[in-house]
Amino acid sequence: MATDISKLGEFGLIRHLTQHIGIKNKETHYGIGDDCAVLNYSDEKDLLVTTDLLMEGIHFDLTYMPLKHLGYKSAMVNFSDVYAMGGTPKQITVSLALSKRFGVEDLEEFYAGLQIACDAHQVDIVGGDTTPSLTGFAISITCIGEVEKGKAIYRNGAKETDLVCVSGDLGGAYMGLQLLEREKAVYYQQLKEANQLKGDARERALKSMEASQPDFHGREYLLERQMRPQARRDIIERLRSAGVQPTAMMDISDGLSSELMHICSQSNTGCRIYEERIPLDYQTAVMAEELNLNVTTCALNGGEDYELLFTVPITDNEKMEEMEDVKVIGYITKPELGMALITRDGNEFELKAQGWNPLKDEES
Amino acid sequence: MATDISKLGEFGLIRHLTQHIGIKNKETHYGIGDDCAVLNYSDEKDLLVTTDLLMEGIHFDLTYMPLKHLGYKSAMVNFSDVYAMGGTPKQITVSLALSKRFGVEDLEEFYAGLQIACDAHQVDIVGGDTTPSLTGFAISITCIGEVEKGKAIYRNGAKETDLVCVSGDLGGAYMGLQLLEREKAVYYQQLKEANQLKGDARERALKSMEASQPDFHGREYLLERQMRPQARRDIIERLRSAGVQPTAMMDISDGLSSELMHICSQSNTGCRIYEERIPLDYQTAVMAEELNLNVTTCALNGGEDYELLFTVPITDNEKMEEMEDVKVIGYITKPELGMALITRDGNEFELKAQGWNPLKDEES
Repeated sequence: MATDISKLGEFGLIRHLTQHIGIKNKETHYGIGDDCAVLNYSDEKDLLVTTDLLMEGIHFDLTYMPLKHLGYKSAMVNFSDVYAMGGTPKQITVSLALSKRFGVEDLEEFYAGLQIACDAHQVDIVGGDTTPSLTGFAISITCIGEVEKGKAIYRNGAKETDLVCVSGDLGGAYMGLQLLEREKAVYYQQLKEANQLKGDARERALKSMEASQPDFHGREYLLERQMRPQARRDIIERLRSAGVQPTAMMDISDGLSSELMHICSQSNTGCRIYEERIPLDYQTAVMAEELNLNVTTCALNGGEDYELLFTVPITDNEKMEEMEDVKVIGYITKPELGMALITRDGNEFELKAQGWNPLKDEES
Repeated sequence: MATDISKLGEFGLIRHLTQHIGIKNKETHYGIGDDCAVLNYSDEKDLLVTTDLLMEGIHFDLTYMPLKHLGYKSAMVNFSDVYAMGGTPKQITVSLALSKRFGVEDLEEFYAGLQIACDAHQVDIVGGDTTPSLTGFAISITCIGEVEKGKAIYRNGAKETDLVCVSGDLGGAYMGLQLLEREKAVYYQQLKEANQLKGDARERALKSMEASQPDFHGREYLLERQMRPQARRDIIERLRSAGVQPTAMMDISDGLSSELMHICSQSNTGCRIYEERIPLDYQTAVMAEELNLNVTTCALNGGEDYELLFTVPITDNEKMEEMEDVKVIGYITKPELGMALITRDGNEFELKAQGWNPLKDEES
């Protein structure tokens, strides 16, 4: 009788639940299905609304994520959704469910991080809700932004021959997560071994653990990517001043493959992406090598980079080649050509979105 | 080093965390501290934003709360916050964190309830987020509404001699909760006793439990109040058509005393409330008697009625006396007179807000 949610996955579930939802108000310009909803309350601007619910143990691990960074990141991922529509974030509401182990100072740390993110992006904290939680920490942030009337950039506007572009570099946030997870495992192993000792030996082992901090030297960038992502306001500003209006855009939160699939399916197109053009940082490549992972796979399927993925008309090619920190990685094709990855050695693979279905992955 | 959150309570904590938050954008007209934030994006309307985070085990108990009712109520409590500003709700976003035991059908039930509430109030579901939860069910809803420019009704506008009014009747939702909690306790007691039996006797006891449903005859209204609260759009419409602009307003979610304290402290006034004028339903009174509770205390401190509490200039007295389902319960005084309850026998008590501090209550 009960159908397992993992059968549908996150996006399938949302589609299933919301497919019959109609729109009743003329102020609702665009509802479910993009980075933000688009609302029509003024003649000059469109309003953007996005929301994220972050749960302890699913989206963050307090063993290595300081609350200040968590506050910062929670705000940033919402700003990123507004930029991904070509807009500017303006206000957030912040709801928190607090477990008993939280003290006032913990919340101060969280709010300090939140405030740093808001100050950097000129966003106001305008409301929220604070409640107890019987279990873990939960964070729900809603962000409101604006975009010039009719200029919101959706996922569904990509056209054949458009260029596919990404900002920054990919896979770093995922590598940062691997690094933190590895250190966490080492820490718990040491703790277990220390606790098997007795008396003075145990005390000495615990003291030595305390004194030794994990060495992240040469990996700072990966930790930054995971713990302090930057929503790309600068890219939106660069596009505006270059006079480029992307045909489709979204932010890369689940991984490049997953987001490409959203754009191609909603635009009813295919795409060809060149492996050698996917932007990678040196530290990402080194860490992938060390962990015996394929770095392209990490860039395609590792999430949380919060870079922008967008398509522009081919006539903007020159502007894009000149634009700082943006790379053209391929182009849009007819839908029947599917989503292809052209490898360094010239082979062609069909792109699969492993990041497509986070709910399924987590639940199964 | 760690300061216990219960020292501050919910409102104290929010004040502590947000006291230094400034406003950077001209579009942010009013931020933290009322039922909604008020945003200034258009010349004709002000925009209202409110958000609620509901956690399993804190705000709802799935043993007796069907998911359809929960979906309905989750939406309704947000609409209520928009009406409490004198506005009209227009859009909601819905974020859900789902525990493993949820099936697709459960979510369909939840959405069905959500949709009934949205249809009844002409509200669009425009977005959200769906994630797994390691623990309980969490619901975060943000509602956007509008109000005629400059006509938002805040908590801080009450003036000396204004009349204090409430809609509907109070204490019913709290009595409904007591009723459900009592039946739950009976059920678990019967289950425990059945499980102490052996073989056939145990089977018979379990079967007989299954066959017998709790008898809520004559208590239907109390269950309705708890499980199907009505956001008071009708009262807002009545006030508009009577040409009455309340000086202060909020919805009664934590209890009459608590909300009176918000209005009086934010307006810098006192108030005198007459016990005999507090509206009660017959079923509420009967149930209080049965549970040996003081019904006035239940009306003052029981939450979740989602009625409107508001103040109007004394010149509107006649209009209020004529208005259907609204009652004048007292008046606003100078701040130094404090918050007074005049009992049926003419005694005067200082009003204390037991509902004032839900976080403290829950945590301690």
